[in-house]
Amino acid sequence: MKIPAVKGTRDLYPDLLAPIRRIFDVWRAVSIRHGFEEFEGPTLEYLDLYREKSGDELVGQLYRLTDSGGRELALRPEMTPTLARMVAAQISSLPKPIKWFSIPTLFRGENVQRGRLREFYQWNVDVIGAADVVADAEVILVGVEALREMGLREADFAVHISNRRMIAAMLQAAGIAPERLSGAYALMDKSGKLEAAEFDRRWDAAYGAHLPSARLRALLASTDLNGLEREMRRIAGGSKHADAAAELEAAVAETARLMAILSDFGITEYCKLDLRVVRGLAYYTGPVFEFYDRSEKERAICGGGRYDDLLGKLGKSREPAVGFGMGDVVLALLLEEKSLRGPARRTAGVYVIDADPAARPIVHRVVAALRRAGLCADFGYAAQPIGKQLKSADKKGARFAVILGIDPADAGRVRIRDMAGGHERDATLANLLEDPKKMIGIDT
Amino acid sequence: MKIPAVKGTRDLYPDLLAPIRRIFDVWRAVSIRHGFEEFEGPTLEYLDLYREKSGDELVGQLYRLTDSGGRELALRPEMTPTLARMVAAQISSLPKPIKWFSIPTLFRGENVQRGRLREFYQWNVDVIGAADVVADAEVILVGVEALREMGLREADFAVHISNRRMIAAMLQAAGIAPERLSGAYALMDKSGKLEAAEFDRRWDAAYGAHLPSARLRALLASTDLNGLEREMRRIAGGSKHADAAAELEAAVAETARLMAILSDFGITEYCKLDLRVVRGLAYYTGPVFEFYDRSEKERAICGGGRYDDLLGKLGKSREPAVGFGMGDVVLALLLEEKSLRGPARRTAGVYVIDADPAARPIVHRVVAALRRAGLCADFGYAAQPIGKQLKSADKKGARFAVILGIDPADAGRVRIRDMAGGHERDATLANLLEDPKKMIGIDT
Repeated sequence: MKIPAVKGTRDLYPDLLAPIRRIFDVWRAVSIRHGFEEFEGPTLEYLDLYREKSGDELVGQLYRLTDSGGRELALRPEMTPTLARMVAAQISSLPKPIKWFSIPTLFRGENVQRGRLREFYQWNVDVIGAADVVADAEVILVGVEALREMGLREADFAVHISNRRMIAAMLQAAGIAPERLSGAYALMDKSGKLEAAEFDRRWDAAYGAHLPSARLRALLASTDLNGLEREMRRIAGGSKHADAAAELEAAVAETARLMAILSDFGITEYCKLDLRVVRGLAYYTGPVFEFYDRSEKERAICGGGRYDDLLGKLGKSREPAVGFGMGDVVLALLLEEKSLRGPARRTAGVYVIDADPAARPIVHRVVAALRRAGLCADFGYAAQPIGKQLKSADKKGARFAVILGIDPADAGRVRIRDMAGGHERDATLANLLEDPKKMIGIDT
Repeated sequence: MKIPAVKGTRDLYPDLLAPIRRIFDVWRAVSIRHGFEEFEGPTLEYLDLYREKSGDELVGQLYRLTDSGGRELALRPEMTPTLARMVAAQISSLPKPIKWFSIPTLFRGENVQRGRLREFYQWNVDVIGAADVVADAEVILVGVEALREMGLREADFAVHISNRRMIAAMLQAAGIAPERLSGAYALMDKSGKLEAAEFDRRWDAAYGAHLPSARLRALLASTDLNGLEREMRRIAGGSKHADAAAELEAAVAETARLMAILSDFGITEYCKLDLRVVRGLAYYTGPVFEFYDRSEKERAICGGGRYDDLLGKLGKSREPAVGFGMGDVVLALLLEEKSLRGPARRTAGVYVIDADPAARPIVHRVVAALRRAGLCADFGYAAQPIGKQLKSADKKGARFAVILGIDPADAGRVRIRDMAGGHERDATLANLLEDPKKMIGIDT
């Protein structure tokens, strides 16, 4: 009886897992190097955690289940609710700022398409308890450095940065009432997909009296901080709404400071202002960002931002927070496209061979000793002619073969063969067992 | 609103995750050193996969769910069905023997108690396509070496080894009919829990005419291979069932060969015969084994064996197979008990400090450069007096502090402080940025 894999999940055979494990290794190493500590949480959470915290889109895609006690559970579709729950439970004892990362498996019952699966991995990097935008800059730095470490360069990807606080203040300073903001966001979010004329028509009908579409489009198309600052200050200066104008001035200064710290960090060339980045509406309160390949052909590689109000909803106290999620699927597509997938297979190191089936017990002894000395060592299970065993060594990518039982008169003699050049030399079994790395001439 | 974690799952804060990650690192490194390749599979599988393949106990504990298309799914309670499904799908193209490992998250809706959770990790190591017991010996070797690498020694744990094939042949050679074997197994499985007199009464009532309880108990208590071989051969010699007697002779020889290879591998002192090990009845066809702490106070650390018939049920062809599963929970209890939990926290390496808030941009620049050079480097987000920053460096376990802005007249001067001894020396910013590792005197 043949049972297939569930659609949207992956059978990760060794050749397919190897590049993903390389991604994990880089995510982990770069996180630790930047002072982040790893945490993990349950795959299974109470459904209520997501009803409270996730947007409607994610709640609609939840895998739900009921435990034996009749409680409603869900498979986590994102890590942030778990993070917020864990931090809220220990908020008084955890030293701030909390700098944590995690690489959870996530589940979303969405349509399977390029870059979208139902079960996937996502790197999460978050700073909790720091209100200063230096924390926003640092999480962006971590993301950029991880992609750099995988071999991607500024010609390959960019971080598109906006600021939800600045956009909100700008729209209000222009005179758009707070209750009309979400409609304006939704339309801005569509600006990339609509024809310019159609966008102008819709925008001007609703908001043109306050902010003409031509002026908004110029803002959305701008990537120049100085030009944007000037235009924002002009809106603030001409505003009849003093609070919104002051808030806009502050948000512009905050954005400029974020860009300045990114410059200190040496990653200016990877970062650009892009006010078209809106992201999940309910969630973010300050700077937001998305990583895209330069061609912008693929979905976002990574998305995140500041979410200062989220923790207060689950715990006693409000805590400023900023973070991102980077999935493995779109990233792997980009690495593949740039021929940066990495090696599919590790080499076996040393392959142990007998020239005589009577030497099998010594093969077992030597292979165990080499492994215990820290070498990658392998051998064949079946008694085979030496030529076949050498062929297996080659297939496994072994750098060296150790050949035992070469001299029936002297069981203590072993031959070491460099598989690349074919060079061979002899040694004693006793010396080999005493210091395998030295005798073979291999350092890892 | 406070939402707790689901019972039987874990909130793995960094201090709790660190020892588990150490376990993963050892499992992975030891697997690779022994020539095994890592695979992963879906957490979500069709319910039918387990209905077909898992025992009734596991099926009763399944977390079931229904996807949007109404299909019945389950969270994997064990990895072997996924392994068998994946191997069966590619059986003709995969080179044999297949030596694979995996570290999946598993889910079982069982009663939460010491050593038992509902969501946990389990290391799986399997060899597929090798009928020879050298493969059984090798998977046992991998398990032993991993525990050794964690610091456990022969005084701490032992591998209890039996052979389902040998037990079956022995009972049949003694004259117990094949259809009565499962009842005999079930009673043998209880032998450790029943009073000796009660066991004898029950056994003799059912099977005593063929094999007296005293003789069986002597076999179950025996750990001496030679004595066991003699007794088994006596049963074979006195048997009226020629096929069973021949099978018993072969199974005894197979068991002796397994023990001989374990001796070649240098792990005899960790291994003992123990015919009380019965394990899941439907599953195993040959040698079976369980790892226990020497006190036998805890549940098994690891269990496995040969399952030659399993792959044939899911694919076209029968494939010999042997493997084990080792969970993280009981193992962690044992490591904790033996004070081998490992360090809870990695050190931060270098902490970058300003002696003057005006030097903040240089702090950002230096910390980014150190990290890009591969160092673990951290800094505080808030402008603070130098003493407070040094205190933070200490709390983070930094080995070195790099102090910037010490001389208002010379922005290019930096101070490097050894946090352990307090020794300080000066360097130029240019030299530090050019070769951070050399200037700080740190090698990782």
